[in-house]
Amino acid sequence: MPKLITTRTRIADMGKPRIIIIGGGFGGLEVAKGLNRFKAQTVLFDKYNHHCFQPLLYQVATSGLETSSIVFPFRKHFGNHEDFFFRLGEVTQIKPEENYIETSIGGLKYDYLVIANGAITNFYGMTDVEHLAHPMKTIIDAIKLRNIIIRNFETALLTDDPELMDSLMDMVIVGGGPTGVELAGALSELKKHVFPRDYKELEVGNMDIHLVEATPRLLNSMSVEASRKALEYLQEMGVHVHLSCTVKSYDGHEVVFSSGEKLISRNLIWAAGVKAQPIYGIRDEAVGRGGRIQVDEFNRVKGYENIFAIGDACIMEGADPSYPYGHPQVAPPAMQQGRLVAENIKRLINNKEMKPFRYRHQGSMATVGRNRAVVDLNKFRTQGFLAWFIWMFVHLISLIGFRNKFFVLLSWLWSYFSYDKSNRLIMARPKDGVQ
Amino acid sequence: MPKLITTRTRIADMGKPRIIIIGGGFGGLEVAKGLNRFKAQTVLFDKYNHHCFQPLLYQVATSGLETSSIVFPFRKHFGNHEDFFFRLGEVTQIKPEENYIETSIGGLKYDYLVIANGAITNFYGMTDVEHLAHPMKTIIDAIKLRNIIIRNFETALLTDDPELMDSLMDMVIVGGGPTGVELAGALSELKKHVFPRDYKELEVGNMDIHLVEATPRLLNSMSVEASRKALEYLQEMGVHVHLSCTVKSYDGHEVVFSSGEKLISRNLIWAAGVKAQPIYGIRDEAVGRGGRIQVDEFNRVKGYENIFAIGDACIMEGADPSYPYGHPQVAPPAMQQGRLVAENIKRLINNKEMKPFRYRHQGSMATVGRNRAVVDLNKFRTQGFLAWFIWMFVHLISLIGFRNKFFVLLSWLWSYFSYDKSNRLIMARPKDGVQ
Repeated sequence: MPKLITTRTRIADMGKPRIIIIGGGFGGLEVAKGLNRFKAQTVLFDKYNHHCFQPLLYQVATSGLETSSIVFPFRKHFGNHEDFFFRLGEVTQIKPEENYIETSIGGLKYDYLVIANGAITNFYGMTDVEHLAHPMKTIIDAIKLRNIIIRNFETALLTDDPELMDSLMDMVIVGGGPTGVELAGALSELKKHVFPRDYKELEVGNMDIHLVEATPRLLNSMSVEASRKALEYLQEMGVHVHLSCTVKSYDGHEVVFSSGEKLISRNLIWAAGVKAQPIYGIRDEAVGRGGRIQVDEFNRVKGYENIFAIGDACIMEGADPSYPYGHPQVAPPAMQQGRLVAENIKRLINNKEMKPFRYRHQGSMATVGRNRAVVDLNKFRTQGFLAWFIWMFVHLISLIGFRNKFFVLLSWLWSYFSYDKSNRLIMARPKDGVQ
Repeated sequence: MPKLITTRTRIADMGKPRIIIIGGGFGGLEVAKGLNRFKAQTVLFDKYNHHCFQPLLYQVATSGLETSSIVFPFRKHFGNHEDFFFRLGEVTQIKPEENYIETSIGGLKYDYLVIANGAITNFYGMTDVEHLAHPMKTIIDAIKLRNIIIRNFETALLTDDPELMDSLMDMVIVGGGPTGVELAGALSELKKHVFPRDYKELEVGNMDIHLVEATPRLLNSMSVEASRKALEYLQEMGVHVHLSCTVKSYDGHEVVFSSGEKLISRNLIWAAGVKAQPIYGIRDEAVGRGGRIQVDEFNRVKGYENIFAIGDACIMEGADPSYPYGHPQVAPPAMQQGRLVAENIKRLINNKEMKPFRYRHQGSMATVGRNRAVVDLNKFRTQGFLAWFIWMFVHLISLIGFRNKFFVLLSWLWSYFSYDKSNRLIMARPKDGVQ
């Protein structure tokens, strides 16, 4: 029987410059798109065979959207590109002195390398939390969280112990950024419109939703007005918001805060922060705050000529005048950097000067629930129905593929008029237990 | 920390007869629906929290439909029913002498019991096949098969060994019933319309699709005309059909047939037959051919007064004049039996005579590809475009829920005009390996 695993990527040298992109998130995708029709070979490595639209993960976790609406196969996206190669694999090491990367499926030489492998959940060294809390960063995280929330409601039916019953229904979300706020809002809609009908045997009114934020305000990257309004909306919707509050430990049942206060819950959802994915082979001096790789104004990794890093994976300090401490770890800087890096690589190859990166902040937004969102645009701030409409519009047009846009729009219309969230599915083999 | 797992189902005695249904497939669902508004308590146990529309599993496995379109949460379906209780759990034993069942979440007494736990894949005792072939019976099977087919194409890119490369692309489907025929057709559409664009680096033309059937014809429960036409369609579509051929062994690479012939493939898909799920506690004398429980003309398990078995789980021999050897293990008999069992339980409780079961065969059908299907109705047989249209119409109206019907219809329209299958996703954590 022939050996199944090979260690060769089987990507031929075409006598053209080879540009390797690590990661097909918002940033990596823009690099690959920008390089289309250019006289180079582009190779994209990713651990998944699809791009994931992370801003809507929370809707998968709360049964609002089906999985397939927010992911998009890379091969479908790049099917018409010439000299583009996708490989399903994980990059394990970079060897800059050899212009070479090692991956789970073999090694490959590059002329230019773009590190766009994004960020992973940051548990700030708390291993108990890492083992027992539920992160919200990948599509699999979202499916597992959905499984767990529903399974815990099913399990709550089986006990007479009121504390245990409550602990299975109660949710503690850590992190008051957009993900935490949106998740808290969506859970409160499940509590109001879906669970009372599904679980008539339970006192769904006893389901408490807690949102915990370390700083003194929610959505602290947005305007004070947006923060205040998001807080007001969540409180109207019955969410308990705890500001200036951090988690110290969790044993799967009891969440202990630094203040000594406690909450009892089987559902600790961790949306409290991210850190860069470690990547081996980059010199230590180039690794900055939060594990992010330090880059210059062209997104070139400090100390290298032909290695770039973009998006959540990098930090550009002291280069972009408006962002001396680096850019926020969200999609727009990653996409803008991706586009410029593609452009700059072309310029380098054509012996032209590179252009420095300047982030054009277009705004930020978060939705709390139906007709309730907060939007900060450059010169325009709004909250409520209009904001909610803008939020939906922006997310729809940002989704990849007409089909995904169309199916998400239909799902939203459906949910809006039916007050229903249809995907409340435990999608796991029964023997796999809670996952 | 309180113990998480309780052994109590917490279903209160309401002073009404309690009817327990094991399994929410096509049959069990009809029993529960039939008992709505009746003066009884209905309890449904299932290992999943959703009904699965098995006839369309093959479209999930071949990237045509998203998972959520063909499953439906039980609680959504029965949300308005009174005195209806759903419990997520597996029945482990029946104790007929005590009118009691043991389940993974505790025990419960019944007045009437309906066994509707369906069938599982039958590997006919071949443990190598059971370990290495891919079944197609549950939604998780379908997702895993989709993952494997796509992952094997990704892996085929990594080798220079032509035999290994072919073995990763080649598909061997065992079982020439509707599932096998439909799967072979859908795979040949992937081969023709999707994979050549996704995998330009591979010789997708070398992907061989084999369909293996033990009897001398495909779809042997249908008319000779339908069998002949299905064979013709598949051959037109490039599928290699092997009739009167059975599998002897499989080592994950080499499929050996009883004739001594061999095929090399990493993808052995097993749709060759089913057997009843074993259920402990029913007397041995009541267990018949293929593990199916023997029932009388009222679907009562032989030797018991208040235990019924329906659908794939049971066999009714010598009772229904037109079907002396039992009914086919497909959805319509299960549904008709489910409806009648609900009716007969009501009659028993109201001290009326039960009605005997007579299967009304409405027809059978299978689809091979776009515009190609075969339909046998009672007095009408057709093949081709009209049959394909009838097949779609019947499957659409049979799906549970308007939303599922609507989304499946849209997906079909989309695929029909775009020749695309959009859900070609590997949906598993990378570290989970091939699954």
